[in-house]
Amino acid sequence: MNCGEGIDTRQVDELFINLDPIQAGGRLTVDAMKAVLAYGDGYSVCDNCEKPFRLDCIKKPPLAKFHEDLAAFVNMDVARLVPGARRGFQAVSDTFVKKGDSVLLTAYSHYTEFLSVEQAGGIPHEVLADDRHIITADAVAARIEEVTHTTGKSPALLFVEEVDYQYGNVHPVKEIARVAHQYDIPVLCNGAYTVGIMPVDGKDLGADFVVGSGHKSMAAPAPSGMLATTSEWAEQLFRTTRIQGDLTGRTFGVKEVEMMGCTLMGVTSIGMMASFPHVKKRVQEYDKHLARCNLIVDALCSIEGTKVQSEYPRRHPLTRMNTSDSFDTVAKVHKKRGFFLLSALRERGITGIIAGSTKVWKFNPYGLTDQQAQYVADMFVDIAKTEGLSVHTP
Amino acid sequence: MNCGEGIDTRQVDELFINLDPIQAGGRLTVDAMKAVLAYGDGYSVCDNCEKPFRLDCIKKPPLAKFHEDLAAFVNMDVARLVPGARRGFQAVSDTFVKKGDSVLLTAYSHYTEFLSVEQAGGIPHEVLADDRHIITADAVAARIEEVTHTTGKSPALLFVEEVDYQYGNVHPVKEIARVAHQYDIPVLCNGAYTVGIMPVDGKDLGADFVVGSGHKSMAAPAPSGMLATTSEWAEQLFRTTRIQGDLTGRTFGVKEVEMMGCTLMGVTSIGMMASFPHVKKRVQEYDKHLARCNLIVDALCSIEGTKVQSEYPRRHPLTRMNTSDSFDTVAKVHKKRGFFLLSALRERGITGIIAGSTKVWKFNPYGLTDQQAQYVADMFVDIAKTEGLSVHTP
Repeated sequence: MNCGEGIDTRQVDELFINLDPIQAGGRLTVDAMKAVLAYGDGYSVCDNCEKPFRLDCIKKPPLAKFHEDLAAFVNMDVARLVPGARRGFQAVSDTFVKKGDSVLLTAYSHYTEFLSVEQAGGIPHEVLADDRHIITADAVAARIEEVTHTTGKSPALLFVEEVDYQYGNVHPVKEIARVAHQYDIPVLCNGAYTVGIMPVDGKDLGADFVVGSGHKSMAAPAPSGMLATTSEWAEQLFRTTRIQGDLTGRTFGVKEVEMMGCTLMGVTSIGMMASFPHVKKRVQEYDKHLARCNLIVDALCSIEGTKVQSEYPRRHPLTRMNTSDSFDTVAKVHKKRGFFLLSALRERGITGIIAGSTKVWKFNPYGLTDQQAQYVADMFVDIAKTEGLSVHTP
Repeated sequence: MNCGEGIDTRQVDELFINLDPIQAGGRLTVDAMKAVLAYGDGYSVCDNCEKPFRLDCIKKPPLAKFHEDLAAFVNMDVARLVPGARRGFQAVSDTFVKKGDSVLLTAYSHYTEFLSVEQAGGIPHEVLADDRHIITADAVAARIEEVTHTTGKSPALLFVEEVDYQYGNVHPVKEIARVAHQYDIPVLCNGAYTVGIMPVDGKDLGADFVVGSGHKSMAAPAPSGMLATTSEWAEQLFRTTRIQGDLTGRTFGVKEVEMMGCTLMGVTSIGMMASFPHVKKRVQEYDKHLARCNLIVDALCSIEGTKVQSEYPRRHPLTRMNTSDSFDTVAKVHKKRGFFLLSALRERGITGIIAGSTKVWKFNPYGLTDQQAQYVADMFVDIAKTEGLSVHTP
C-alpha cells in the first residue's frame, strides 16, 4: 500500500503498541487529524487575516485566543508558535547572546540548543550532572562562579531541560533558576518533554523562557512548538521590525523579527490547536501515565540483571534501561544477535525500541492504557522467560 | 460543522473557485492529503533514521532521493527542506551577511527577506523598478555602483524575486545575476512564486541560491520550502556543527548549523514529497495555466475602465488589476459599497479577492481548468453588465 509515488503508507501506530522514546507525546489526536484534513493547505488559516496581519492576531480560526491559552497553559505572559522547539532556542539565542558571550548549558542539553548558541556565536559551558544524573543548583552555581571568574563576565543565558532526553529525569529548574537569577542570568527552560505531558508552571519555576515542542509533546504535526516568556522579556524577544526600504520607505508593520513574521500556518497551527483541549486534559492525568510507566519498569526490573538507569520511581515516562546483564547475555548467543529483542517484541505487537539494542536502551510508554501497559509489562517478562532468564516474583 | 473545539471546518476550496493570490499554488494534491493522514505524527518519517542521522539522509520514506530530486528540479547542486521560504532567506543572510554589510533588495522584495537582513544586522539598499514594474539589470548595476561608492564596499548579497508578489511580473534574473557577479555579489533568487509553478533553471539564471515555498507553490503543507545552492556555496551554507561541550566533549555529528539539524519531519516533508510528481508535471503545462489566466484578464479588460497593472500578456498567473474606473464607480453608489464585488462573486461560486477592494486588487487563477477559467471570465463580465458597466465585445 502506498500514499504517493514511492511512499509506503506508515502503519506503525495502527499495527503496534509503539514505545518509541520521541514519538509518544506527538501522536495526533482524532481532532487534530480532522483539522489537518480540513486545513491541509498552507494559507488555510489566513482566510480571515485582518489588520495588523499577524498569525497570533487571527480571530477565525481562533488563533489569537489559542496564543493566550498557550501562555496561560505554562503560566507565562506571552506565547508564540514556532516551527519546532529548536526555532524557539534560536530566537532566544539570537536575541540575548552576542558573539563571544558565555552560555551555560548542561551535560544533557539537546544538540539544537548547542546549534542555537553556535549560530549566535556564543561560547558553551556545560554543567555536569551528579551521580544520580541530575543537574543540581549547586553545580550550576559552581559553574557560574567558575565561568565568570575565568572569562571576567557572567554568562548571558542558561539553558536547562526540565526533563532531559537521555534519562528522562526531572531536574530542579526552580532551584536552578533561583541561583541563575542571583547572577542576573536569564533562564530558558526546555520543556520539549514536559509541556503537553505534565503540568508546567513557568512562573513557579522562575523561567524567563519556556519552550515546548508541538510534535514531541503536544500531539501536533511537525514542525511545531511554542516559545513563551514573561512581560519582562517579551518586548525584546518579540521585538517588531525596524528595518526600512531606503528608497521606497517601506516598513513592515508589526512583524516580529525573531519570528520572521508569521510562523505556523495551516496544518501545524490548526493541528496543535485541535489537540489542545485533549492535551490540557491529559496533563491533569499525569499520575496515571506515570503509574503505567512504573508498572512496566517494575516488570523489567524483575528480570534478573536488569537495571533502570533513570531516576526511580519514574517521574517522567521516557526511561533508560540497562539490560547488559540480562537481554544482552541472550543476544550474545541468539541467532538474531541483538536484534532478537525488538524482533520478539514485534512478534508480540510491540515496537519502538532501537533495533539491535540490548545493552542500554530507552522507551516511552506515554499514552498507553492500563491494559496496554500491563500487556507490555507481561510481554517483557514473557520474552525473558522464553529466553531462559530468571525472573523474580515480586 | 467543526473539526475540534471552536474550529469551524474550512470549506473554501470545496465550495468555491478560489482566486486567492497566495493560496493557488499551495493547495494539496490528493496524494499529499493521503500522505498527510498516514504520516500525521511529527516523527513519522524518522522510523528508519539511521547514521548519520539527518533528515536528508533518510532512505525510507525516500527523503534522501527527494532531496536530490529537488536540487535537480531547479537545476542546482544541493537542496535542503526548510520551514518556509523565509527560513531559507534567514539561513543565507545569517551565513553571508555580517553586521553592517550592505545588502541589495528590490522595491518588490518580500518582507521576510528584509527581516532576514535585519536579523543579520545588514543594511538594506533597494533597487527600484522601471515604469513597467520590472527590475532591470541596468538599475541593479547603477545601484551597486552607488552603494559601493557611498559605503566603500560592495554589497554582500543581492535578493531578487523571479516573480514578485505585488505585480506577479517576471524579472530578468539572468541578466541581473550576470551584473551582480561582475561585482562578485552572490545572488539569491526568490522563487516562492515560481518553483513548483513554472520551470526554474537555477544554473541558467545564474543564481547562487534558489529558494522555493512548499505551501505557496509546491502543493505542500505549511511551513515548508526549499533552499538550493551550487557546490560553490554549499559547504559554507550547509556547514556542519563545530561546537563542542566543554566538559563532556560532546560533538553533534553532521547536523547543519543553519538548518538547526533536521527541518521538516512528518506532514510537511511527506506532503511535499507526495505532491512532487504532480508538481513536476504541472510546471511542464505552464503555458496552459497562463492561457487560462490571460483569458480572464482579457475578459476583465473588456469591461470599460478596467486596466491590468501587471505586465501583459501575463507571464505568471498572479495578477494585479485596477478597476478604479469600473467596479469602483459601482462601489461608490452600491448599498454594499466596496463589498459588492466579492459578494457578487461569491453568489456565483467564486471567492478569494480581498473583501471591500474595488480599486486595486490581485487574483490568481492558477490551477483552474479551462472550463472554470471561462466561467470566471464570464462571471466578471456578467457582474459588470448587471451593474450597468459597459463591456466591449472583443
